[in-house]
Amino acid sequence: MIITLKKDALQNEIDLLIDELEKLGIIVNLIQGNNFNVLGLVGDTSKVDEQRLKAYEWIKDVTRIAAPYKLANRMFHPEDTIVDVSGIKVGGNNPIVIIGGPCAVEGLEPIISVANKVKDAGGVMLRGGAYKPRTSPYAFQGMGYEGILAMKEASNKTKLPIVSELMSADKIDEFVENVDLIQIGARNMQNFDLLKAVGKINKPILLKRGLSATIEEWIMSAEYIMAAGNPNVILCERGIRTFEKYTRNTLDLAVIPIIKERTHLPIIIDPSHAAGDYKLIESISLAAIAAGADGLIIEVHENPSCAWSDGAQSLKPEKFKTLIEKAKKVANAVDREIL
Amino acid sequence: MIITLKKDALQNEIDLLIDELEKLGIIVNLIQGNNFNVLGLVGDTSKVDEQRLKAYEWIKDVTRIAAPYKLANRMFHPEDTIVDVSGIKVGGNNPIVIIGGPCAVEGLEPIISVANKVKDAGGVMLRGGAYKPRTSPYAFQGMGYEGILAMKEASNKTKLPIVSELMSADKIDEFVENVDLIQIGARNMQNFDLLKAVGKINKPILLKRGLSATIEEWIMSAEYIMAAGNPNVILCERGIRTFEKYTRNTLDLAVIPIIKERTHLPIIIDPSHAAGDYKLIESISLAAIAAGADGLIIEVHENPSCAWSDGAQSLKPEKFKTLIEKAKKVANAVDREIL
Amino acid sequence: MIITLKKDALQNEIDLLIDELEKLGIIVNLIQGNNFNVLGLVGDTSKVDEQRLKAYEWIKDVTRIAAPYKLANRMFHPEDTIVDVSGIKVGGNNPIVIIGGPCAVEGLEPIISVANKVKDAGGVMLRGGAYKPRTSPYAFQGMGYEGILAMKEASNKTKLPIVSELMSADKIDEFVENVDLIQIGARNMQNFDLLKAVGKINKPILLKRGLSATIEEWIMSAEYIMAAGNPNVILCERGIRTFEKYTRNTLDLAVIPIIKERTHLPIIIDPSHAAGDYKLIESISLAAIAAGADGLIIEVHENPSCAWSDGAQSLKPEKFKTLIEKAKKVANAVDREIL
Amino acid sequence: MIITLKKDALQNEIDLLIDELEKLGIIVNLIQGNNFNVLGLVGDTSKVDEQRLKAYEWIKDVTRIAAPYKLANRMFHPEDTIVDVSGIKVGGNNPIVIIGGPCAVEGLEPIISVANKVKDAGGVMLRGGAYKPRTSPYAFQGMGYEGILAMKEASNKTKLPIVSELMSADKIDEFVENVDLIQIGARNMQNFDLLKAVGKINKPILLKRGLSATIEEWIMSAEYIMAAGNPNVILCERGIRTFEKYTRNTLDLAVIPIIKERTHLPIIIDPSHAAGDYKLIESISLAAIAAGADGLIIEVHENPSCAWSDGAQSLKPEKFKTLIEKAKKVANAVDREIL
Repeated sequence: MIITLKKDALQNEIDLLIDELEKLGIIVNLIQGNNFNVLGLVGDTSKVDEQRLKAYEWIKDVTRIAAPYKLANRMFHPEDTIVDVSGIKVGGNNPIVIIGGPCAVEGLEPIISVANKVKDAGGVMLRGGAYKPRTSPYAFQGMGYEGILAMKEASNKTKLPIVSELMSADKIDEFVENVDLIQIGARNMQNFDLLKAVGKINKPILLKRGLSATIEEWIMSAEYIMAAGNPNVILCERGIRTFEKYTRNTLDLAVIPIIKERTHLPIIIDPSHAAGDYKLIESISLAAIAAGADGLIIEVHENPSCAWSDGAQSLKPEKFKTLIEKAKKVANAVDREIL
Repeated sequence: MIITLKKDALQNEIDLLIDELEKLGIIVNLIQGNNFNVLGLVGDTSKVDEQRLKAYEWIKDVTRIAAPYKLANRMFHPEDTIVDVSGIKVGGNNPIVIIGGPCAVEGLEPIISVANKVKDAGGVMLRGGAYKPRTSPYAFQGMGYEGILAMKEASNKTKLPIVSELMSADKIDEFVENVDLIQIGARNMQNFDLLKAVGKINKPILLKRGLSATIEEWIMSAEYIMAAGNPNVILCERGIRTFEKYTRNTLDLAVIPIIKERTHLPIIIDPSHAAGDYKLIESISLAAIAAGADGLIIEVHENPSCAWSDGAQSLKPEKFKTLIEKAKKVANAVDREIL
Repeated sequence: MIITLKKDALQNEIDLLIDELEKLGIIVNLIQGNNFNVLGLVGDTSKVDEQRLKAYEWIKDVTRIAAPYKLANRMFHPEDTIVDVSGIKVGGNNPIVIIGGPCAVEGLEPIISVANKVKDAGGVMLRGGAYKPRTSPYAFQGMGYEGILAMKEASNKTKLPIVSELMSADKIDEFVENVDLIQIGARNMQNFDLLKAVGKINKPILLKRGLSATIEEWIMSAEYIMAAGNPNVILCERGIRTFEKYTRNTLDLAVIPIIKERTHLPIIIDPSHAAGDYKLIESISLAAIAAGADGLIIEVHENPSCAWSDGAQSLKPEKFKTLIEKAKKVANAVDREIL
Repeated sequence: MIITLKKDALQNEIDLLIDELEKLGIIVNLIQGNNFNVLGLVGDTSKVDEQRLKAYEWIKDVTRIAAPYKLANRMFHPEDTIVDVSGIKVGGNNPIVIIGGPCAVEGLEPIISVANKVKDAGGVMLRGGAYKPRTSPYAFQGMGYEGILAMKEASNKTKLPIVSELMSADKIDEFVENVDLIQIGARNMQNFDLLKAVGKINKPILLKRGLSATIEEWIMSAEYIMAAGNPNVILCERGIRTFEKYTRNTLDLAVIPIIKERTHLPIIIDPSHAAGDYKLIESISLAAIAAGADGLIIEVHENPSCAWSDGAQSLKPEKFKTLIEKAKKVANAVDREIL
């Protein structure tokens, strides 16, 4: 950590601060500059609060050099984390997983029917929302527990593990019992109580990036889950909010090499929420594979114009099948396989 | 609602859609254009899902004309909502309220001490976090229930109503019993389960705008609370996330006239989180008053460089006092008063 | 175009507006709604100014249905535009072009040397800046005309066509004489005088997307060039400005299918400026190919840590060569070829 | 400047770099850390290129401590710059200037008429565009030189100095001869050739902030003008591009205290382009005054719904007059005056 001091800082105030830092076991080096002086801190600065330091009137700025995350940091954990989702291994050199299914579960028969189509097309997990975060209180809020049970039944019939979003810690037992991969949605990425709650279970977690979360904040949210005891985190990019309005969000594919460089966690891509438009899905899905993604999670609906939510961005099963066939070729081109 | 149809749309498909819409009690008008045709929908279109319509391959676009919110909409509720916070009236032509206090409660004595300073300076409510949303799991997470009790004690001694952030629905009883104005933080603005939970109580709610929430999404989150039965919502702008890095967030003061035009709810401004730098607070606070804000919520700490969180953006009590004195003059200049 | 009228609009004012619109040859349809009335305009509304209409106090909103661009619009020009750059065909089903070279020309010998390396690696055009847009007036501003002549000499020796950025219309003759593909940089995307100037020549133009330009604004800037008489426009995405700071910009690859759907122009990708970090280039370049890009333009420098500008994002020639080899495989996987 | 080195950096490579830096007259201090080493550079680092340093594979990061601007930097020029616009002094403790006028000049008679209204209302300068940057090539592009002459005539009749936008260096003589305050528009804020050109004249320049320019980039553009020899720069905030769509741009009023802290230049606010909606102008104008702005530049049109451009955001003269009256009260409340 680097602390920049204004030239008018009083020596006794600086000395007090240095004393305090040294008591934390930190070694402090002073560099005298022309317009500013600089304190270089060596040691574990994770306990030092930048905001507090910035409150001194004689401190101009504080710059952190080491990343604020430890458990997720590849520097301290060089090998890839492999997350096991009911037998399917995600991350490392494992085959790429493609997950399909509707935005929302709409009933037992529809979810079984689409699950079969997802499986026939080559999908290896089934997604489906039973609890739905909707901008409007007047929109369909999901089938709830009944939806979870329908997903479970579809899983029993197809042997596809299931992915579903948990919105509230009070439903956690229901999810632990029935869901194979528990999703924390973009809007809850900094719902820290929920992160702590899923950190205490041993199910794999799919952590979506928040709409305007920096990559660092996103990794810090993974760190919350890991620090609470659950190392089984898969990250999922789903587009960030920008000024552009031709797409629902702007998909940030550079996160793939960045996450792989800075962390050891698997990363998958959700092209459906990023694009918001089914016509764009295939193109950006192939891009994600080429960039090195460990998986894709795609909305699939048998009749998108009748979907209870997110119809505009859902693929029909036949298009999903075509996409997987093309994805296999691209995966091979970058020396990987689709599971 | 306006539905734009591609010219190659098949008449029987259009007819099926029109039938379906008419069954919802909607009147459909067709306009034939050169390159597109348009369906103009008249009636209550709040039940029509835009995303679903966009899934038709022969539909080019869907545009909503009426706002998606009703209870918060000034069109259907022209008079200002006045929210009563333990006797202090917020909104309408009532005097502007200035709320002060530390980011985080740090103990019984400190909170009582700063509460007295806030009161002496002219503040009329006390803010303080007992449960803290922190980006890092290694940062101070708040004193929890003990902090709430300390706030309550400070309130008893000073007669200042208290404002504190609720992060999880399982603490709601504790807040209903002790807190006068329950804050929903920016990171939880779309934690819909939490919104529904505070919609079922009759305490006033301070709803902060999310970091990248549009004004419409923010109003929709107020609508969630109101639709669940609680009309006592105060909106709070605290800056949005942009590319600019000299400030922590970008304060969007145009929301003040916009919120007053489109809704009937009170709106207050949080300059502390917007700026992230104590040196900017006074200037943007006065701007907020001039723009018509119904209140300010400002971080005040007796010794910012010792604050357990957000020291950089906290004002010392004497600066807070100066700010209130200046605010009074600006309020008078725009024909309002500071409480 | 759809004009939404407030219910209190006076009939005689509406009638005056309708008269005026009908004089422009536009047919106006009125739909009576519950809370608003709507005018649906049929005909060529490109002459109608939305901003002017919004100035009426009784008009609530104005929504454009048809895209504001015509010459670039695929609706009116379904076949792909193929741009010929000194014999290299760009766009349509033509092979993908990969352009390499330094950010800035640094002398005759260095540019000839790197040009040979670019060619050996498989690059088919040479990029290099002679006039450099730099944020700081104290940074190297480019070699100017001397740099252009050095590029030309490198082109003579290698037979690679050259790409260079034109910053000011007064240098246009110099560029027409020497440069094969004239780049308009991101910072000048809305320098409309410059767009008009390059619209009057018949050299191909590489139009970069502005840092915060919407896709629509970017197409409108292409429209400027085309409306002035030059149809030879290649679009180039180079990342947009967002809140994220781990990358220099956020690369928006969804533009590839969007540009191909809405326009008939070729689109190439600049991963170097998007990423700002050489370690990310390969991954996002392969993604761009998989998404359907017609080309890549990549910064290559023999000794990046000695580059006079943008060293951090430059590839060494051997890495550029590896990238092209991998790109060939990905191109084949999506049924295309690298030239 | 702080250079963070990876632990695997080779000593001889570091030594070479240190040698090179010392040749530039820079003193280099080494701090050994646990996971990284740090070089602290003392001296004039404005010649050191961060991007070049980042290209070394063994350098993790480079952080600049001193601001990259010098001439605009208050640290080296503590007193306020006062810019004299044909006798009107802008900046420092001088009275606040309010500038009014149409977006575009629409003819001699209209501009004289509105100039009189602007003057009667209390405006002290006249704005008006003769060369207009328009997103669409089919929109009105301005009257050109005829417009400039009309402005000049209006100035002669009213004695109001005039402000108009220069879009291209080839019109500079025309502007020097006729215009009192030459505006560089948001879209040209990084048209560096234009900045250099206006740096060579001695007329005052009004430099608008770019749509997505950081405050630092904006100051650097002022630095370009100043470095070329013209110290008479007034900065103008006009809103930045964000995800929010209820306003045309997001007005960033925190720039006022920031610009005053970091630079010595005057700053004025353009609420019209920020808001894009006349109903918001008064509120945010008063906010700007309260925040400490040195002036306002506001679009005024006698008949906004007939304006040739930007009608939606233009005030009628009577509303402009009311605004100025209210602005006087707010100015007094913050111990300033309106000229």
